Amino acid sequence: MHEAAAAVKKRSLPLARVYRLLEPGPVVLLSTAHRGRANVMTMSWLTMMDFEPPLVGCVLSDRNFSFELLRASKQCVINVPEAKLARQVVGCGNTSGRRVDKFARFGLTAVPASKVGAPMVAECFANLECRLANARWAKRYCFFVLEVVKAWIDPAVTAPRTLHHRGRGEFMIAGRTIKLPSRMK
Amino acid sequence: MHEAAAAVKKRSLPLARVYRLLEPGPVVLLSTAHRGRANVMTMSWLTMMDFEPPLVGCVLSDRNFSFELLRASKQCVINVPEAKLARQVVGCGNTSGRRVDKFARFGLTAVPASKVGAPMVAECFANLECRLANARWAKRYCFFVLEVVKAWIDPAVTAPRTLHHRGRGEFMIAGRTIKLPSRMK
Repeated sequence: MHEAAAAVKKRSLPLARVYRLLEPGPVVLLSTAHRGRANVMTMSWLTMMDFEPPLVGCVLSDRNFSFELLRASKQCVINVPEAKLARQVVGCGNTSGRRVDKFARFGLTAVPASKVGAPMVAECFANLECRLANARWAKRYCFFVLEVVKAWIDPAVTAPRTLHHRGRGEFMIAGRTIKLPSRMK
Repeated sequence: MHEAAAAVKKRSLPLARVYRLLEPGPVVLLSTAHRGRANVMTMSWLTMMDFEPPLVGCVLSDRNFSFELLRASKQCVINVPEAKLARQVVGCGNTSGRRVDKFARFGLTAVPASKVGAPMVAECFANLECRLANARWAKRYCFFVLEVVKAWIDPAVTAPRTLHHRGRGEFMIAGRTIKLPSRMK
């Protein structure tokens, strides 16, 4: 296991299972880094696009500092927080990395990833290391296609209490899970 | 109010509020129609792409009958179900409209939409009438950009118990809502 991941007690997650994390629509923290400057932003506009290798489509406003860092570095980490990080999630959404070191401001721990230069947010229960796969719609839609190249998960978190943004600071917290007989993946 | 929508006791929802329905990542039922054949499929891979007019990006497998109907008709309805429709949601995901009339099979009521030819699913608490805005990534990624042109909501449903797919028939049901001071839209 990679040392940094070991330090946060995570294990490697098979890439074929990544969709199970993102398909339910959690708010995520997107971390980026370029030329010694790291940043983290709050993001809700993302979708799975393929199972394996996992492709994720996401929208980043071009007014965001992270937009520039992602375009320049072509790498990022999608970090999935639980409800206990709600204050930090809103804080990261309300501030700009141009002026503020959000890791320091919100007490988030940046740990090195294994395959990309962007840091992982240790406090999040899952971290998906991504490479930029397609930026052709960056200008028109601020839309990026990311490929997840390595995934980490905290094995202690089996029913994550993820946050789901309903607009204007309102978040639904993941409730109970039901299981139905299904042939769907 | 449009007659069909009145029949299901829905009111018009301002387009600027559509993102509040889809951003939390609910499973939806996508309904389509072309040349007298209607269909409905289960879909979880979608994301908001713009606020107003609301743009929605979504992935439909090209093995799905709905893929053909959407490409041909260039219209669809995104219907948002609550947990009480879980059986129908899984049923629609496990069958193909090529062989089965899913409305009849699963007891779903197709009512006319106001601006598109695809039917609305009456049992869903929200219905978003959509026109196909961009199909340029249909071949490469099975990805479609939809524009929501009219939205309907059941005003009685204020904290919807939406379904969020975690893979293999496992669904998280929307839990409680928290509100934090936020400048985020």
